[in-house]
Amino acid sequence: MTAEPLADFLNRARVRVDEALARILPTPPACPAIVSDAMRYSVFAGGKRLRPILTLAAADAVTRAGHTRVGDTRVGHRFSGAGASADAGADAGADPDPLRLALPAACAIELIHTYSLIHDDLPAMDDDTLRRGRPTLHVVYGDGIAILAGDGLHAEAFTLLATAPALDDPETLRRKLRVLWLIGSAAGPAGMVGGQAIDLQAAGQAPGHPLTLDADGLRGMHARKTGALIRASAVSGAIMAGAADDLVAAMDGYATEVGLAFQIVDDILDVESDPATLGKSTGKDAAGAKPTYPALFGLDRSRALAADCLERAHATLTAAGLTGGWLGPIAEWVVRRKS
Amino acid sequence: MTAEPLADFLNRARVRVDEALARILPTPPACPAIVSDAMRYSVFAGGKRLRPILTLAAADAVTRAGHTRVGDTRVGHRFSGAGASADAGADAGADPDPLRLALPAACAIELIHTYSLIHDDLPAMDDDTLRRGRPTLHVVYGDGIAILAGDGLHAEAFTLLATAPALDDPETLRRKLRVLWLIGSAAGPAGMVGGQAIDLQAAGQAPGHPLTLDADGLRGMHARKTGALIRASAVSGAIMAGAADDLVAAMDGYATEVGLAFQIVDDILDVESDPATLGKSTGKDAAGAKPTYPALFGLDRSRALAADCLERAHATLTAAGLTGGWLGPIAEWVVRRKS
Repeated sequence: MTAEPLADFLNRARVRVDEALARILPTPPACPAIVSDAMRYSVFAGGKRLRPILTLAAADAVTRAGHTRVGDTRVGHRFSGAGASADAGADAGADPDPLRLALPAACAIELIHTYSLIHDDLPAMDDDTLRRGRPTLHVVYGDGIAILAGDGLHAEAFTLLATAPALDDPETLRRKLRVLWLIGSAAGPAGMVGGQAIDLQAAGQAPGHPLTLDADGLRGMHARKTGALIRASAVSGAIMAGAADDLVAAMDGYATEVGLAFQIVDDILDVESDPATLGKSTGKDAAGAKPTYPALFGLDRSRALAADCLERAHATLTAAGLTGGWLGPIAEWVVRRKS
Repeated sequence: MTAEPLADFLNRARVRVDEALARILPTPPACPAIVSDAMRYSVFAGGKRLRPILTLAAADAVTRAGHTRVGDTRVGHRFSGAGASADAGADAGADPDPLRLALPAACAIELIHTYSLIHDDLPAMDDDTLRRGRPTLHVVYGDGIAILAGDGLHAEAFTLLATAPALDDPETLRRKLRVLWLIGSAAGPAGMVGGQAIDLQAAGQAPGHPLTLDADGLRGMHARKTGALIRASAVSGAIMAGAADDLVAAMDGYATEVGLAFQIVDDILDVESDPATLGKSTGKDAAGAKPTYPALFGLDRSRALAADCLERAHATLTAAGLTGGWLGPIAEWVVRRKS
């Protein structure tokens, strides 16, 4: 186990992600001020940064475990850029800054998550006016600019992952494209977008295409809507750190449990919490007759389901030899959070 | 010059693109039926396919000219996949099927173009109800599903470009990432999205952020809104075919003129044509007080400006030794088209 408390790691990871995002998001004159301002309004709205934290923690855990691909023990140094030569004498497999390996993927995923919140909040979708304690983007800029700001963040995510290929060695190029494919698939029609479409149908917001969800249908919707990108977050970190295939599979199993737990807890908080604590409207699920875990299973059984996820997440980490980092504590945090 | 008439090449390119798009767009059960159906409704709505045609024609022209990068004369074969070994005895630099090199980029760009039309047509943006002679997507599926179908196509575009990196040699990996970066930048906040935001501001649809455009402002808006992706279309084809840097620059110059001409002619057709010919509403620009070339310069001067673009496009091709393919005839088609 690491001696660093989880809170310190979370803070360190958030600072790294926020600094990188502030640096890479385009500004005038390259980008019109209204788009730049709108994108930053939503990106720097005080989100939890769960997804990029998972990406960085996964890369860190893989590096700690030393389970990188055969013949690839010095993987860290390949991502070190200009400073790599100075590190060449360090331990094989131990990048002095393992978070750097996965930072572009972490930021790309946060941009995609942010774009999805902007679009989901629109009147044509969930019609939310409060997010992270502030008016949602379309309330401030109008629906048109909000759609465009979301589209802009979506494109920036992929552009960021494709930056500077001329500087990369072939193994890094291959990992970048693999991660790009993974994130694109998780965000696209078979993943997040598909899940939101099912949600719209279930909420009666897709005229002529209603849908009623049972427990399996609910699980399937969430597996797409939030699960896919959370899985991609952890797996991207593992791939960028050079994880062997068995470790990538274990990371996917861990993140599947974290993603499901996250959604169950989200549904519970929508019933139990209040807007001041949560920073967004509560009680909306019941009001909109949306299917939720508490509605289908009750609050007690929902809490037990989340605890089961946590137990399976820990078991997966133990079996894969990945208990030395922050992945376990992050799973605890996801289940025990109050907002 | 090729003996094949332009119409035959356009038809051949459209068939290739349409077949590839039909194959790669996800279907149930991987993707919910409503998203799959909505995406296909817009992708297969009978568009001109100008952008992917430019990509394929650019790759073809570079291959014909033999101006590939030093040490890269057999570039075509690297993209040939499983069939490559059978072609190994053919002419160096002449892939037996040069269009194949650039097909994923061509399709990705068409998906991005289609997503942008879906979002631009929304009531929150241009509020168009007719496109390519059919009701726009949001009229059929509602605004929420239309936004999601656009988002889905956007993600698919990048996923498509990142497919199967394990099969690629390092030079192909590098070209794919370079093209991904290029397309993402052209589509993003500094390109297409930024241009549409300026358009919304100029049309008074960004509450609190009005903007008045003069001739330079109009040119700048179009350079972003349509110009950037048209340039990326031709340049992507050149890069995937292994063009040397000077040829990539010439392709960019050519496509800049084609993009500007395309927009001027679009504005002229909005005044001169009718919905039955054009497949979309006409007279909208004047009705919405949107800035246009005819409004700023009059119809005669606008026609002369488009002719100037055509002349410069031809001059660029001649100077770069790129006159042997379809790029010249495509520029003529863009200027002389009636719809």
